[in-house]
Amino acid sequence: MKKYVNPKSSEWAKILSRPTQSFEAIEPVVREIFEKVKSEGDNALKTYTQRFDGVNLTDFRVSEKEISEATGKVSEELKSAIETARGNITKFHAAQRTDKVSTETMPGVQCWQEKRPIQKVGLYIPGGSAPLFSTILMLAIPAKLAGCEEIVVCSPPDKGGKLNPVILYTAQLCGVTKIFKVGGIQAIAGMTLGTETIPKVFKIFGPGNQYVTVAKQWATKMGVAIDMPAGPSELLVVADTTANPAFVASDLLSQAEHGIDSQVILISTSAELLDKVEKELENQLAALPRQEIARQAIAHSRMILVKDDNTALAVINEYGPEHYIVCVENEDFYIQNTVNAGSVFIGNYTPESVGDYASGTNHTLPTNGYAKQYSGVNLDSFMKSMTFQKLSKEGIQNIGKSVELMAEAEGLQAHKNAVTLRLKELDF
Amino acid sequence: MKKYVNPKSSEWAKILSRPTQSFEAIEPVVREIFEKVKSEGDNALKTYTQRFDGVNLTDFRVSEKEISEATGKVSEELKSAIETARGNITKFHAAQRTDKVSTETMPGVQCWQEKRPIQKVGLYIPGGSAPLFSTILMLAIPAKLAGCEEIVVCSPPDKGGKLNPVILYTAQLCGVTKIFKVGGIQAIAGMTLGTETIPKVFKIFGPGNQYVTVAKQWATKMGVAIDMPAGPSELLVVADTTANPAFVASDLLSQAEHGIDSQVILISTSAELLDKVEKELENQLAALPRQEIARQAIAHSRMILVKDDNTALAVINEYGPEHYIVCVENEDFYIQNTVNAGSVFIGNYTPESVGDYASGTNHTLPTNGYAKQYSGVNLDSFMKSMTFQKLSKEGIQNIGKSVELMAEAEGLQAHKNAVTLRLKELDF
Repeated sequence: MKKYVNPKSSEWAKILSRPTQSFEAIEPVVREIFEKVKSEGDNALKTYTQRFDGVNLTDFRVSEKEISEATGKVSEELKSAIETARGNITKFHAAQRTDKVSTETMPGVQCWQEKRPIQKVGLYIPGGSAPLFSTILMLAIPAKLAGCEEIVVCSPPDKGGKLNPVILYTAQLCGVTKIFKVGGIQAIAGMTLGTETIPKVFKIFGPGNQYVTVAKQWATKMGVAIDMPAGPSELLVVADTTANPAFVASDLLSQAEHGIDSQVILISTSAELLDKVEKELENQLAALPRQEIARQAIAHSRMILVKDDNTALAVINEYGPEHYIVCVENEDFYIQNTVNAGSVFIGNYTPESVGDYASGTNHTLPTNGYAKQYSGVNLDSFMKSMTFQKLSKEGIQNIGKSVELMAEAEGLQAHKNAVTLRLKELDF
Repeated sequence: MKKYVNPKSSEWAKILSRPTQSFEAIEPVVREIFEKVKSEGDNALKTYTQRFDGVNLTDFRVSEKEISEATGKVSEELKSAIETARGNITKFHAAQRTDKVSTETMPGVQCWQEKRPIQKVGLYIPGGSAPLFSTILMLAIPAKLAGCEEIVVCSPPDKGGKLNPVILYTAQLCGVTKIFKVGGIQAIAGMTLGTETIPKVFKIFGPGNQYVTVAKQWATKMGVAIDMPAGPSELLVVADTTANPAFVASDLLSQAEHGIDSQVILISTSAELLDKVEKELENQLAALPRQEIARQAIAHSRMILVKDDNTALAVINEYGPEHYIVCVENEDFYIQNTVNAGSVFIGNYTPESVGDYASGTNHTLPTNGYAKQYSGVNLDSFMKSMTFQKLSKEGIQNIGKSVELMAEAEGLQAHKNAVTLRLKELDF
C-alpha cells in the first residue's frame, strides 16, 4: 500500500482519486442492442444470448421444475445460513416502514403523504464465477416488503443454459415472481422495453459490469428508473491503536479480493497501527486463493497518516466511502460527524462481511463518492411517495387570497380563476 | 377536447399517449458547453450568457445590495401571501422528518439507519416572462429543513442583467446561500463542474426547458444527482355528477395555460358531466389572457367516458398523472386504489392551484408517467440514508457461521477470513 504521511489538504483530491472510466465507447453497442430488442423482442434476446453467452435457448423463463430441482441441490447448511440472513434483512428493512404523514397546514387545509409500492421492478444478478445469491436477498426482500407486485430477476445463463441453483433457490425463497436466463445489455433492454416474454418494469436494480452499467444509464433515458449509478467497490477504514491490526488487514483484503480495481484506504492517527497492519497484510495475503487479484488492488491502495481526528474526518467526508469501518476509541465522534458514507461498520467485531451478507443492512451501496448524494438501497427504494390534499370550504377561504395573489404575480390567470370561481360560489 | 366513449382497453395506450420528444439533437451542444465550462470556468459562463441572454456580466453573483433593493420592490400584499405559503410548506415538509430506525436483528447485532443532509444542492429557476418564485419556495424550504449547508440558486438574467425582485426576495427569505445570474445549459454545467464563482454541488433540482432538461440528464453522467427527469406538465381529473362543472373546467384550463404541450385528461362515468364541462370550457376560455395557449392545449386534450369506477381506476393507474383531481362521491375508492400519481387534489374545493402555491405539498412532481417510479420532491430528496451496524462479541458469534458459509458459497475467501479470524480470537 502506498503510504502518505500528513498530506496537505490540497493533495487530498489526488490521493483520494478513484479510477475514472469513460464508457462512451460502449454506448453505440448499447444503442444497437436496445433498438434490436425493441424491434425484434425475444428473437433479439435469443441472438444476443447465443453470441455473448454461447448458448442457444428456446425459452428464457426458468420453469417451476428447474426451481424445484435447484432446491434439492443446495446444502441444508447453506439453506440455514441463507435463512439467518433472510431473517435479519427482513427485520431491518421492515423496520424502515414509515407511517402516513398527515398535517393540517391551515384550518381546513389537510395535507398528507403516503408511500406506495413501485408495481414492477427488475433485479439484475450478474453471472460469472461466483453466484451472487446475496444480492438477491438484498434486492428481493425489500421489494417484497414494499409490496411490489412483479419482481423480475434476469441473470445470464451458463454454457449449459442454466442458472446456479443457489440463485434459483434464493430467488424463489424471497418471492421473486419471474426468473429469466438473460444477461448483459440485452437483459436491461428487455426489462426496459418489454418483450413477448419479459415484462417491462418501472425500475431496475442490481450490479453489473461496464456493459450493464452503461445499459442501465441508457435505460434512464427511456422512462425507467435505476437504483443508482455504479462504480468499483471500495472500503475506507479509520483505525487507532485500539483496533486489532489482523482484523483490519482481513477487512482490507476482503475488499481487495473483489477485483483489481477495488479501492482500499486506511486512515489513522497512529503510525504504529499503520505499520502493524502492513505486516499483517503480507502474512494474510499469502494464504488467499484470490491472492493475485487482492495483491494488485492492495498495490494501488493507500494508507494515510493524519495528525488528528478532525483531519481524518475531513478526509473521510471528502472521499465519501461506500463501506466505512470505524475502529477507534472515540467512535462516537466519527459516527456523529461523518456525513458522506454508504454503510458504517463499528468496532473490532464488525467486519464488512457481516453487512455484505447477513447483519440486516443492505449491501447495495453508493460507490465512487455517490454517498454524497445517493442512499444505499433501502425499503423506500421500492416505493414512491405520493401527496394528497383536501380543502374544506373553510380551507379555500383561508388560503384562497394568497393563491390568487401568487398566481397573478406569476402571470397565470387561469390558476387564479380556479380559486376565484370557488370563492365566489362561497360568496367570499 | 377529443371525446372517447367507452374505449377498449387495447386502445388506452394510444389515447393516453404523451407527446414524445427526442432531445438527442441537443446533446452535442450540451457536450460542448460542459467542456468549455470545464476548461474555462467563469469565462465560459460569460461567453454563453452574452450569447444566449444577450447581456454582458462581469459578476454573476447577486450582491447583498441587489437583494435588499429587491425586498423593497415586492408589495406587502404579495409578501404576506408568500409568508402564508412558506408557513404551510414548512409545516408539511417538517412533518416528513423520520426518526433514526434502529433494531437488534439478532442478539448482539445492532443495525440502524439515519438520514443526513446532502451538503451542497443547486436549484435551477427558469427565467422568461413569469418569475417562478413559487418554485424557490418548493425547493429551498425543504433544502433548508433537511440541513443542506450550501443552497445555490441559478437563474438566467434579463436583458438588463437583473433577476426579478420576487425571485431574489423569496430566495433570501428561504435561506438560499448564493444566487447566481446564470441560466440554461451553462448554469447546469457550472453547478456540475464548479467554476471560480459557482460551487460544485452534489444534486441539482428544478424545472427548465429542453436545454436544461438535457443538461441535467448529462450532469448525471458526471457524478451529480438530479431530482427527476422532466416532461410537460399534466393534469387528470376524475369527476362525477357531484362535481361542479365550472370548477372542473377552471382546473383543466389552469393546467392548459402552462403551454401548448400541456396535457389535460378528464375521465367520468357520467356523459352528462362531460357535456357540462365542455360547455363551461368554452365560456371560460374566452376570458383568459393566455387563451391562445390554453385553446391549443385543450384541442389535443381528452375526455373519456368509462362504464364504471374500476375501469376509470385502471385508466388512471396506466396513465400515472402528475396532478390528479378526484372529485367524485366515492372518493375513498380512488384515494385508496390509485398507485401511480404525483399529487392528489380531493373534492370540489381543492383546485390544483392550491398545491401549486400554498397548501403545503410540493409542486415539483413526476410528469410523463414517471409517477410509476419516482416520488415528487419531498424532504428526503435533500437527504440520503446511511446505515450503521455494530456487533458485540456475542453478535459475531451468533452470525459468524452463516457469514462464513455464504462467503464461501460465493467464492470469496477473504470475506470468510475476516470473520474466521474474529471467531478464532474469541475461541469460538
